[in-house]
Amino acid sequence: MEEESKSLPPKDNFSEWYNELLMMAQVMDVRYPIKGIYVWYPFGFSIRKKVYNMLRALMDVDHQECYFPMLIPKPELLKESEHIKGFEDEVYWVTHGGLSPLEIPLALRPTSETAIYPMYKLWIRSHADLPLKLYQIVNTFRYETKQTRPLIRLREITSFKEAHTAHATWEDAEKQVHEAMDLYSDFFTKLSVPFVINKRPDWDKFPGADYTMAFDTLMPNGRSLQIGTVHHLGTKFAKTYDITYEDDKGERQYVNQTCYGISERCIAAVIGIHGDNKGLVLPPNAAPTQVVIIPIVFKSGGEEVLDVCRKVKAILNDSGITAVLDDTNERPGAKYYKWEMKGVPFRIEIGPRDIKNNAVMLVRRDGVKQSIPMDGLSQTVQNKLMDFQAELLKKASDFMWSRIKDCATLDEAKAQIESGWARMSWCGEKACGLEMENVTGGKLLGEPKGMTGSGTCPVCGKPSDKVVLVAKSY
Amino acid sequence: MEEESKSLPPKDNFSEWYNELLMMAQVMDVRYPIKGIYVWYPFGFSIRKKVYNMLRALMDVDHQECYFPMLIPKPELLKESEHIKGFEDEVYWVTHGGLSPLEIPLALRPTSETAIYPMYKLWIRSHADLPLKLYQIVNTFRYETKQTRPLIRLREITSFKEAHTAHATWEDAEKQVHEAMDLYSDFFTKLSVPFVINKRPDWDKFPGADYTMAFDTLMPNGRSLQIGTVHHLGTKFAKTYDITYEDDKGERQYVNQTCYGISERCIAAVIGIHGDNKGLVLPPNAAPTQVVIIPIVFKSGGEEVLDVCRKVKAILNDSGITAVLDDTNERPGAKYYKWEMKGVPFRIEIGPRDIKNNAVMLVRRDGVKQSIPMDGLSQTVQNKLMDFQAELLKKASDFMWSRIKDCATLDEAKAQIESGWARMSWCGEKACGLEMENVTGGKLLGEPKGMTGSGTCPVCGKPSDKVVLVAKSY
Repeated sequence: MEEESKSLPPKDNFSEWYNELLMMAQVMDVRYPIKGIYVWYPFGFSIRKKVYNMLRALMDVDHQECYFPMLIPKPELLKESEHIKGFEDEVYWVTHGGLSPLEIPLALRPTSETAIYPMYKLWIRSHADLPLKLYQIVNTFRYETKQTRPLIRLREITSFKEAHTAHATWEDAEKQVHEAMDLYSDFFTKLSVPFVINKRPDWDKFPGADYTMAFDTLMPNGRSLQIGTVHHLGTKFAKTYDITYEDDKGERQYVNQTCYGISERCIAAVIGIHGDNKGLVLPPNAAPTQVVIIPIVFKSGGEEVLDVCRKVKAILNDSGITAVLDDTNERPGAKYYKWEMKGVPFRIEIGPRDIKNNAVMLVRRDGVKQSIPMDGLSQTVQNKLMDFQAELLKKASDFMWSRIKDCATLDEAKAQIESGWARMSWCGEKACGLEMENVTGGKLLGEPKGMTGSGTCPVCGKPSDKVVLVAKSY
Repeated sequence: MEEESKSLPPKDNFSEWYNELLMMAQVMDVRYPIKGIYVWYPFGFSIRKKVYNMLRALMDVDHQECYFPMLIPKPELLKESEHIKGFEDEVYWVTHGGLSPLEIPLALRPTSETAIYPMYKLWIRSHADLPLKLYQIVNTFRYETKQTRPLIRLREITSFKEAHTAHATWEDAEKQVHEAMDLYSDFFTKLSVPFVINKRPDWDKFPGADYTMAFDTLMPNGRSLQIGTVHHLGTKFAKTYDITYEDDKGERQYVNQTCYGISERCIAAVIGIHGDNKGLVLPPNAAPTQVVIIPIVFKSGGEEVLDVCRKVKAILNDSGITAVLDDTNERPGAKYYKWEMKGVPFRIEIGPRDIKNNAVMLVRRDGVKQSIPMDGLSQTVQNKLMDFQAELLKKASDFMWSRIKDCATLDEAKAQIESGWARMSWCGEKACGLEMENVTGGKLLGEPKGMTGSGTCPVCGKPSDKVVLVAKSY
């Protein structure tokens, strides 16, 4: 495929850097002729595959994968009035089949509650059917009118992992909310993506939910990015779609439900947070290729070097490390450029001198360079991959926490959200929350899990131990 | 989930048997409120996963997976006039985003040539970019007006694997057609699904193709089912979408293309061909669970039996066999019923007498029963799974070939296609082919690969060594 000859803009110019990088590293092609709709290049898709296989493995422990239809009949979508209000401006409508108008317009799923819950009504009969924990990974659609961005704000979300559970009681569903938060925490940690879990304010919860817990991370430009949500639905949808079970006294009860989702924004976070001026930096868990081996060949001795390279590749592959050998005719410098752009965590260079020393030269994607003995190579590389993974998380985490600032006034917060999260006391009143948003121009992300304070609400002055994060948000 | 209390209709009543089985075995739920659109139950989806992972593994040898958008702008879809004629009656149109009409209507992809090839124009520059071999597994949509059937004729095809390749010359593309046929042959053989490859007549080839090779199998009711197609596209689409490469003389040449696809019909074939009056019969390669272990527990000694069951499960799992232990409280008979319905290839029963004999009782899904010594158990089971797989293929293959009959007259053919394929000589003229279809009420599947004859065309009486298959077709 085509080579790009442009150079990557510096990361300080984040938006431009991000868009160019996706093209240059061949993650997404942004030239598809519909606004907000993009193409996954094969390389980008291989990252997607790796990341989603990891997510699947976590889900499969106690969820079952399934598939519900993409088209939703208008009457089903409209049944839950609060829910539809949240989506009605954003739904794509199919109105024609061939040249004939359809009797009932069909919505492209913006999310699948209204496709799934009519089936849950049929599937759930008794206490023995609960809990029911299903998930699917599907394409969903939003007619976005805001500015679109690849992987972040899309009209076709190609990779929406949505889980839908049903339980006997509100408390059981609450327990599931916690399990889902643990699962997502595990997932993002494996991706080296730091996060804060915020309880969204009531006016910004998922349409139809009792409450919403959201995973937010911070992009390098100081903008907040929602990367996952977990919703307690209570009996709201169960009442609308008549989903009941027979309890042990033989009485019909409404189920309590949760749903939780993650989209390709998880990949946007990995790319945005870890990348640098040379291109992608992939944490080993998200890297389709973890190690690239590059032969350093001079005038003679090429075959011997290649033999050692092949041997090293085999040793690494055998121990479960995905290693490839780049034995093309390009200059080493061109190879370095190409593989750095694609974010391969480690490069191993092998030349005659390394062979003489019974060693290889290992270069981490962040430039750290070290000679490694051949003895115990795969174990050493494995350990170093784990170290690199952990260091990326620590670095990103340090950055994120350094950008949380306690602000006593709205003016202070307004300045802070240009580069990070403003933490403020909040009395809990909606009016004060909205005033925070109005004055700062930011968004109230909600109450961060595990954080409290002792201050006064900067709007009304009431003392409170509640704190909220406010940010400029994608 | 709910238990069905109905019993399965006999397989002789094929249509009813098929529909009921999909529900009773929890493969597809047909109660979704749109005609021709169905829900994959978790169990059905686990078959889908197993089968498509096998397909992916075959494709990944020398194709790359990617993802192109589901929505196609009307002008792109209309560019290739022959192509669109084949689909215009079947395309779903999105005309509104939220409450606003869209400026340009968007089609739900019926297949992805018109989404992919505008990108190929951008991606392919030089000889070095060729061959390009990409594939995706996606949902596609057809506004079917004929009778719909789960997995067979759908309005949302949830699992369309479509490959799209580009080559320097017509001959290179022709070679790819052969490689694709080999790959698909391998795939269907692994599924124990027999087939004939037919070269479709010109009037029934893929819209826009130079020619179409189709994989057809025979369902037990004598109906033909197309389960895969491979198309040589020549330079037709390359000319429409201006896809060119620079050859080694520095001149721009149009690429030659192929595309080939397989949908969830491959699963319909497995279910329809192998199932019986008790339910599904899954070939081991397609079975999410290959062996179910059922403890036969009497008044005492239950713990010992369960211990042995767990040990057997571990032994089998360790050798790569997917075995589960059903230690629920149901009666063994109820367990047999349930697992037979789900088509698990082997049941292993373990009771006190088996333990005394240092053996287990192995019952194949077709009823063949045999005591197997514990020594070398996993190897024995592995061998017997392969035998079972091969026997299913042989049985299905024998059935299919027994239903091909050479017919000298159209009347004979008309009678034959009530239960199978009629093979006739054909002069090659379209008029004669259409007359065959008119008189028999069947469809001319085309010239079967590797078959010739020496007869006379039953319509015009001309001698010919060409033969064609005619059938009633799904």
